[in-house]
Formats: sequence, structure tokens, C-alpha cells
Amino acid sequence: MHKVKVTLLPEKQEIWATRGEILSEALLLAGYILETPCAGHGICGKCKVRLENRKDSSLELYANEWQHLSMEEIQQGCRLACQVVLKEDVQVQITTSFREMLRKTMGVTVVGNETDFPLYPLVRKIFLQQLPRPTLEDQLGDWERMERGLVEGGFLPRPEHLEKGLQLDGEILRTLPAVLRASDYQVTAVLYNHKLIALEEGDTTSQMFGVALDMGTTTMVGALIDLNTGKQLAVTSRTNPQRSFGADIISRLSFGSQGQEQLLALQAGLVEAVNQILDELVQSAGIEPNYIYETVVVGNTVIHHLFLGLDPTYLGQGPYVPVVTRPLQVKARRLKIHMRDSGYLYLLPNIAGFIGGDAVGVILATSLYQSSKVQLAVDIGTNGEIVLGCAQQLLACSTAAGPAFEGARIKHGMRAVYGAIEQVKLGDEVEVQVIGSVSPQGISGSGLIDAVAEMLRLGIIDHTGRILAPAELPAELPKKLKQRVVEEKHRREFILVSGEGLTNQKTISISQEDIRELQLAKGAIAAGILVLTRELGITIEQINQVFLAGAFGSCLNPSSARAIGLIPNLPLEKVKAVGNAAGAGAILALLSRSARKQAAQVAREVRHIELSGRPDFQEAFLGAMYFPRNNKFY
Amino acid sequence: MHKVKVTLLPEKQEIWATRGEILSEALLLAGYILETPCAGHGICGKCKVRLENRKDSSLELYANEWQHLSMEEIQQGCRLACQVVLKEDVQVQITTSFREMLRKTMGVTVVGNETDFPLYPLVRKIFLQQLPRPTLEDQLGDWERMERGLVEGGFLPRPEHLEKGLQLDGEILRTLPAVLRASDYQVTAVLYNHKLIALEEGDTTSQMFGVALDMGTTTMVGALIDLNTGKQLAVTSRTNPQRSFGADIISRLSFGSQGQEQLLALQAGLVEAVNQILDELVQSAGIEPNYIYETVVVGNTVIHHLFLGLDPTYLGQGPYVPVVTRPLQVKARRLKIHMRDSGYLYLLPNIAGFIGGDAVGVILATSLYQSSKVQLAVDIGTNGEIVLGCAQQLLACSTAAGPAFEGARIKHGMRAVYGAIEQVKLGDEVEVQVIGSVSPQGISGSGLIDAVAEMLRLGIIDHTGRILAPAELPAELPKKLKQRVVEEKHRREFILVSGEGLTNQKTISISQEDIRELQLAKGAIAAGILVLTRELGITIEQINQVFLAGAFGSCLNPSSARAIGLIPNLPLEKVKAVGNAAGAGAILALLSRSARKQAAQVAREVRHIELSGRPDFQEAFLGAMYFPRNNKFY
Ligand code: FES
Ligand code: FES
Repeated sequence: MHKVKVTLLPEKQEIWATRGEILSEALLLAGYILETPCAGHGICGKCKVRLENRKDSSLELYANEWQHLSMEEIQQGCRLACQVVLKEDVQVQITTSFREMLRKTMGVTVVGNETDFPLYPLVRKIFLQQLPRPTLEDQLGDWERMERGLVEGGFLPRPEHLEKGLQLDGEILRTLPAVLRASDYQVTAVLYNHKLIALEEGDTTSQMFGVALDMGTTTMVGALIDLNTGKQLAVTSRTNPQRSFGADIISRLSFGSQGQEQLLALQAGLVEAVNQILDELVQSAGIEPNYIYETVVVGNTVIHHLFLGLDPTYLGQGPYVPVVTRPLQVKARRLKIHMRDSGYLYLLPNIAGFIGGDAVGVILATSLYQSSKVQLAVDIGTNGEIVLGCAQQLLACSTAAGPAFEGARIKHGMRAVYGAIEQVKLGDEVEVQVIGSVSPQGISGSGLIDAVAEMLRLGIIDHTGRILAPAELPAELPKKLKQRVVEEKHRREFILVSGEGLTNQKTISISQEDIRELQLAKGAIAAGILVLTRELGITIEQINQVFLAGAFGSCLNPSSARAIGLIPNLPLEKVKAVGNAAGAGAILALLSRSARKQAAQVAREVRHIELSGRPDFQEAFLGAMYFPRNNKFY
Repeated sequence: MHKVKVTLLPEKQEIWATRGEILSEALLLAGYILETPCAGHGICGKCKVRLENRKDSSLELYANEWQHLSMEEIQQGCRLACQVVLKEDVQVQITTSFREMLRKTMGVTVVGNETDFPLYPLVRKIFLQQLPRPTLEDQLGDWERMERGLVEGGFLPRPEHLEKGLQLDGEILRTLPAVLRASDYQVTAVLYNHKLIALEEGDTTSQMFGVALDMGTTTMVGALIDLNTGKQLAVTSRTNPQRSFGADIISRLSFGSQGQEQLLALQAGLVEAVNQILDELVQSAGIEPNYIYETVVVGNTVIHHLFLGLDPTYLGQGPYVPVVTRPLQVKARRLKIHMRDSGYLYLLPNIAGFIGGDAVGVILATSLYQSSKVQLAVDIGTNGEIVLGCAQQLLACSTAAGPAFEGARIKHGMRAVYGAIEQVKLGDEVEVQVIGSVSPQGISGSGLIDAVAEMLRLGIIDHTGRILAPAELPAELPKKLKQRVVEEKHRREFILVSGEGLTNQKTISISQEDIRELQLAKGAIAAGILVLTRELGITIEQINQVFLAGAFGSCLNPSSARAIGLIPNLPLEKVKAVGNAAGAGAILALLSRSARKQAAQVAREVRHIELSGRPDFQEAFLGAMYFPRNNKFY
């Protein structure tokens, strides 16, 4: 991944681009909308810019703009942005005429932050108010008539400038003559990039919706978005129906690998759940499902494969190879999704077998790929995905670390739902905070981390993870806490909530085994972080920012996470919970072509580090299972 | 249609291109195969040429090749062919290195002639002999692995140079993992342009077939072609099943316009007939239907619409607007055609409501679009289509002239089948030649034209088309012929074959009404030719060549056609029967990308002249119904 820096003048705005990329493409990726009549073929001459450090050196020019530039302009360094191949850092003076074409709209807002990505969905509706009716002098075909309207309106490049011109949905051809005439040649064309995906009578431009779908291993979340405004109209979620085939992804994977029938069953379940989500969204927002033209999907690679009915067998065996990683467009019709059937599902690209479109979504939402300083994103779901790097290089790895954080294999563990202890403080006594403020039913992952962090702080646990015997406990420990460390048949545990003598309160404790499970889980994440920093050739201290993504990451107490060594020991202001960043990435891709292009590029460029079988990972893992001492990460 | 002339040096080969076209595209259209690593993005620098008349004028350069050219080269006029926009006539010196990339293979041979089009089908098979197996260090997805193999082998441009990279057939993804592993990573990829349409285990490159299908109003002809060699392996024909809905196209059109059910019935009939043709071809050549990857279809616009299930209603009402004219690709799967289901049907573009892909096929096969002299092509099927022009401009019109030539509305008329009189000579007696040398059953269109030409020559008919009364006949007319002019109840006719006193021979005659029908039919064609010459601003004498296309055109006696004024009065060596030129056009498009590209361009550029409602056509028609006098056309 060789990057060059493009500085836009006079604002001195810096953007990063890949070496060899065309300048106009790099602008698009950086969030600028550039609409030109010739679609970047160097024909219209409208995309003139001036390269400041390229003056007077016509032999080093990158471009073919000679027919559009005067000798004087050439000597000044003028070029056509659509022809400039970026080979090294460059300063670009944006001319006034160019600025007129270059729209930098409001960035799309996700998880409360305005991003750099402009509101520029791939779906577009154009009301053709008055196509000329055919006459004996103008016998153009219905299709070509409409295409002409779109080209003349500047909504499409001229057919000869596109490899194949407007792309067709065969079904539209069937109804085209009737629709044109019934509407008296006043129709709304729905474009999906350069593909016409629908044609509607009259002016329907105000009705244009899309869905962003985060297909999590445990929970699937859908958001209905108004593509005209970028506003979220409704959101709903549903348990992933595949949970019945196994809570973790590996058991579903092996079920899906058993044969075509099993695979189809898993796929059908997912499709049904997606349809239920879409039905609910449509109902709660009161819109027509036919006005949903696109659904952008993020999910891990296994769910991606199962949803498309692709054989997951080889994801489950070394070397863990996916069937496909590139972004995919699938006609809604093909999967029978409850939206416009000529519309599309768009699946964000996968990076590797266990790093899917959800990780790409996280990278998008955190802008990791364009930071000049090194940043770290950790997404802890059922798996743990870790991305580290900056504009020059991004590394990613995954660890099968998740289940413990979701309550699996923890004695009183539970998911972060109603009744779960989610925060723990130890003072003179134990203070717990319970989701829903009811009497506690168990402990969530973040509650567990809090509790262990506190126990560590007070010396109830040593850095190897051992709960001290009551006799070993520090003298200064409040008595009420001391009494909570109990031992029975050689099993030591710490009582968080005692149910003794109470009928509707069970005892909730943290056992030595629970702590071991936590050590395994956080050790895997920490070791992954360590391996990535070494691969990148940096020290832990050089990490400038840590993003905690995912539902779990968001409710995590960063201070506790740091205390147990789940994340590096950095000042807390450098640790940021970014919520469902994967879902936010789906929204970004839905709303902005720039984001989508960026996603494809990121997925190609991120270097995947396979941890399995790496001796340095094994070694790091052994060390990282312990808890930190002296504020050192490891 | 603005054309520029490109002269290739040192051979002084001249090709015509459209103004604004890219030089490398123009070369492709002219039949050169140019395969470059960067797919014409100006990145690889391999397509260097020298523009002879562009030396020393860097400001007038067309191109962006600066990073690949030295100052000296620039001053010599060197450019990148993929970046040169053609704005005026230009002389291109083909450098040695460029010549290496430029393949001018044997031209495709159709109807016995080698054409300029290289054998360069859109379908391509590539045996990937040894894809590297995935390892923990190389975890590329199955799809991307195969794509990398194709890119590294030079069979595909790098993904970043293509808007979307390799295009996917979703079904292939499903079987991809299994196919790769079952074949031990030795697979044959089938590309359709940049789309992967099939993946086969092992090396199947020798099995690659296509079908060229001429869907005539009366007869459908299919040819099975080996795409590796261009050889025709089998040919078969079948009566268009739609004849049962009406012999002429208009009655089928109105049937198909009655509603969805009727339209589907017509479509189903066509699909069934196509499948019967394919089944027969496959059987007689002994190949696997799965190895047929493409079927190229030509037909008139109505058949085109009916075959695709497109509403033909507006073809039948002024202003006669087709649903679509551009070339179309349709997955074989969608119409359930008996070939590889992920393969494609390719329909040549239509020009207008009554000038379809068959006319485009004729233009392709006759190379009308690249002649510097004006040429005329007349295709008389159930309709008559006329194309006139040269490289600078082509005009086309259609006349509903055909039925009489196919025997409809002619007293003893019949199609040119077994038992039809196809040639007539009048000497001292009547000499007829009968198809199959059996006793005559009727007269074919060409027989009728022969007979009328002879009757005109001998003065039996005057130039208004009137059969002279026996008393008026020229004195020098042989007696035996005189006796054949009979009159009964004011109906005059000429006895060609007398069945008097014979039980198994019926009398075959040409009636006054028959001659009137012929006058209407040939008058329409002649008037069409006249209107086109006037539109083009030339005289009849300036027509340099006449092509007679179609089954009917081929068996026509050019001298007779000229005598009755069906075609202009030109020296006979300038009149050439080219057989089923529409079908030959389909073969060309199947075998050569150049031809296909040319077809698309031709269809866009041909100017369609609508004759209906034109006063000058009406007037010309009135004159052209008479027979020529003094060797003048009209
Ligand atoms: S976009 Fe038209 S010349 Fe650059
Ligand atoms: S084809 Fe690569 S530079 Fe022209």
C-alpha cells in the first residue's frame, strides 16, 4: 500500500491517495463529489486544476489535457484532474471553475459524528419532466429516448463515453412502453450508478429509501434510511435465527458445510429474518417497500457466505479461505428480499476468512485508513477483530475471543440484557449497576471486566489471575469485602451478590474459572494487538487512539479494560467507544459512493495477519494472559 | 456521422473512424486485435505510435502519454494509441513494438469471402494450469485467486483498471470452491468479455462453440460455429412457428399487441423453435450443449421484440417506435435456451421499427460502412430493407414490399420451394426452370420477375404494365408466344405452362393483376432507393455497387431485376448477390468483437428515413410503379 499525499490549495486540505490512482478518483474517495460531462475520459476538459509543484516541466506531466490547455496554462502546471496519475506527493490548486463542479456536501452523520463522506448515494432518482414524444421525425426507441433525456439532463455520461452505456434491467423493458405512455412521458428514472433499476410514473423523487443491515452473529440490526436526506427513519433488530444452530460461528459453519440442504436451511433462515426486519422498518416508517432500492449488508465472512448460499466449508479448515472477498451486488429479486425486486443488495467486501465486511465497516466509520497517526480499533463481538495502522498501512487480525465477553462459559455470565450486572465498583462494599435496575440475574461481559479490574486494584487477585486465599488477602481490604472471598471444595470465588436467605435473589459470584476464561479471552485480544504492533514496527506507546467498537465495546468501561490489559495502557482520552461501528459503516456505504469506494479499496489494501500457527502469537498469548503490572501493557 | 480517415503506415492501409473516437478503438473496429496490459487506460505505455502529420506541435497533441515518452519522441509526434482522440484525418506510423501487440489475424470468412474482421470472439477459454494452492501465507479468496491467475496470465486487465473488475455470475460462486478443489486447481475459465460465465474442471479449451441465428419472418436458420476455428460445424433451419399467427409480420404484431397472454404465446413459440434448432445442431455435430456459450441473434425489430417478450404495440402504430434499439445481452437462463445457462444471447441492435438487426447484419456482411464509394444493399424478405451510402454516411429505409416476391397475392405464386418455376426465358417458346426439375406447381418471385422482364423485352407488356391485347401484340413476336396471351371475361393473362388436356399438370399463368402486384412491390423498393439517393444528394449513376441480399435476392436474376426497374440500371458486374447476408452478419458478430462493435456503431449512426407520410416517396412511388424506358431507372 503505497500512499501519496495530495494537498488541496488554497485550503491546505490534505488527503491520502494510493500511488497510481487518478486524481479525480482520489478526490471522490476523499469525499468530494465531482460530476463531469465526460465521466473522466479527458474529453470535456472541465476538470482543470493546477499542480503547484509541477510547473514548467511538461515532460513530467501526468496527463493528456493538451487539447484543452493553452501553452501558458501548461507552463503554469495546469492539468485535467481526470487524467493525472498520482505518483508522488502533489499540491493541487483548485481553480474556481473546478470548484463549481466539486461539491463537498455535508458529510454523512453516523453515531452522532459528521464524517468526511458526502451524502452521495449510489441510488439516484431523476424526474424526467417532459421527454419529447415520438414523431415520424423522431422515432427513437423508448429506451433510447429515456436515455437521451438522462444524458441531456447531465445525469448520465454520453453512451459513447461509457463502455456499454446505460445498463438494463430486462424487466423494465417489458413495462417501459406502457409506463411512458400512461404517464404521458413524465417518468422518474431510478439509477443505480449507471444502471436503470426502475422507472416510475410521475414524480416520485421524494420517495427514495435504503436499508443498512448489520448481520451480527448474535443480533441483526436494520436501519431504514431516507436516501434524500440521510436521515434514519426507523431502526429494528432481531436475534440472528442461526443461533439455534449454535451460538458461535464455528458450529454454524460446520452445520452449513454438511451439505446443500443444510446450507439452504441456514440461508433461508437469514433471508426470513432480513425480511422480517425490512417488514418492520417499512411498517414503522409507513413507507412503500417498493421504494427501498438498496440494502447494504455488513457481517462477518461466515454470515456473508451463509446469506448468499456460498459453501463455507473452507472457511472452517486451514488455510481458512473464503469463496470471495470483493464487494458484491446481488439483485434483491434473487434472494426474494422484501424491497424493490430490481434493486440491489450490496455486501461490503470481506478482508479474510474471519475478518468480514463488519471489520471494513468499522474501518470506514473510524476513518482509520486516512489518519496520519497510528490508531487501533478493536471490535469485540462473538469474535474479536483488531485493526491497527494509519493511512500508509493497515493490518488486521481476528481472534476467537468473544464468547466469554458475551457470557458464555462464565458461571453467572449472561448477555448484556435486562437483569445483567453491567458495572461493578468495590469500595467498603460492593456496588453493582444492573441493566433495567431490577434485581440482578447474572453478570455481563463489561460487568465481569469491571469486577476483575476492581479485584485486581484491591489485591483480591494477583497478576497471574489467582484469587488470593482469605488468609492471603491484603490487610487493608475492607472487612465486608474480605468476607466475600469464599472457598469451598478447593473452588475459590468472590461473591458479588449474595442470595443467602433470600427467595428471589440468587447468589452471583465470580469464580476462579471465570477469571481464567476472561484471561484467555483478553489474552487473545491483547496478543493480537501485540503481534500487529510488531508487524507494523511500532511500540504500544505509538498507538495514538483506541476505538472500542461493537455493542460490547460501547458499554465497556475503558478504565477497567485498560486495567485488566485488554487494551493498551494509554491515557483514557485516547480511548473512544464508537458503538456499532460496523452498522455505521453500512450506513456510510449506503449513503456515500465515496465511502463505498473507500471500502473496496480498504479491503484490498488491509494486510491480514493470520495468527493461527504463528509462534510469536503463541508466545505473546502466554504472556498476555496475565494481568498487567506496573502499568505496562506486556 | 462525421468520419475521419486514419492511414496506417508504412502499409498505407486506410481505415475510417468516427470523429471523437479513440485511435485504439478505431483500430479494433477496423479489425485489429490490440491486447494491452492496462486495457487502454494510458498506464502501461505499451501502445506507442507515431502520428506523422502531428510532429513538433505538442500543443495540438491529443494524448496523455507524457510519462511514457521522451522529449525527442514527443517532438517526433509519438503518442499512446489508447489516448489519441481522433479529430481529423491522421497518418499513423505503426512502430515495431506496437505491431507486436497488434494482431491482424485471418479475417472471418462468411458466404465464401474473407472479411476484414479478425477471428476474435467475445467468448474466450483460458486453462489455468496451476493456480497456487492457498496456504496460511496466501489466504486469498477462491474467486480472487482465480482472478489473480487470469490477470497475471494477461487475460484480464488488473482489477483497479476496470471499473468493477471481473464480473460475476452468482451461480459460479456457488460451485467455485468444489470445482477448484476437485480439479486440483486446474480449471478452465470461460470469459465473456470481462465476465466469467463458467468454470470447468481440467482443460476444456478445445470445446468452445457458438450459434448464429437468423430469425427470419418466414424461416429461421441456425449455424453452429466452432469459436476456436471459426468453422461452421452444422446448419439447420426451421419454419418460423409464428407463421400460424399470420404470414406477414403485421398480423403477428397485432396479435402480440392484444395482451400479455398472446405475447407470451408468440414468445414461447419462438423459444421452442430456437431450442429445436439448437438441439438439432448439437446432435448433428455431436457436441455438448453446455459448450455453447453464446448465440447471436439477428431478426427484424418485430421478431426481436416478440422473442424477448417486449410489447410490440407501438411498432404497429405511427410513429412506429421500438421499445429498444441498442444491442442486448440476455442470459440464456432467462429464456431457457438449450445452451450453457450462464451463457448469453446477443441480439444485434435494431435501427428502427422496421429496420432490425437483420439489416445491421447485412451492413456488416457487405462492409457498406467502410466503403469510400456509395453502395446500395437491398434485402428483400417479407419486408424490403434498403441501405445506401458509404463510410461517411449511411441511410436506410424499409418498405412493406415483400409478400408479392414470396408469392403472396400472386395467382400462381409460391415460395421458392420444390416445384416452383424460378427462371423463365422467352424465345420461340417459353422455357422454364423448375426447382427440383419436377413438373411445375407455381411460380416463385424470381420466376415472376424473369417472366415479366422477358414479356417487357418482347413487348407483351408495355411500360405501364398493361398486357397488350392479342391484337396489339408486336408483329415480330413468335406465334407460339402470341397464342399464350389470352383474354377471358376482360381478364388478360399470359400462359406460362399450359395444363390443357393434362391431368397432372395445372395451367400456370401470369395475370394482369399479378403484374400490378409486382409493380406495387417493385415500385415501393425502387421509390425507396430513389428517396435515399436524393437524401444522400447523389444521382442513381453514382451508385457504385448493388448488393442483393436475402434468400430471395440470391436467386434473383440481376438482369431481370434491372429490366423491371427493381434495381437501378447499372452494369451487371456491379450487382452482386450476397446470399443470407443477415445470417452472415450474425456469424461475424459471433466470431469477431470488431464486427460486434462495428454493428453497435453502425446501428447508432445509420440515418433512418421514414418513408410513410413523405410526399416525395408517394410521388416517386407513383412513377416507379411503371417499368423503365430507355434504360433509365426513373
Ligand atoms: S472529466 Fe472531462 S476532461 Fe476530465
Ligand atoms: S494501452 Fe496501456 S497505455 Fe495505452
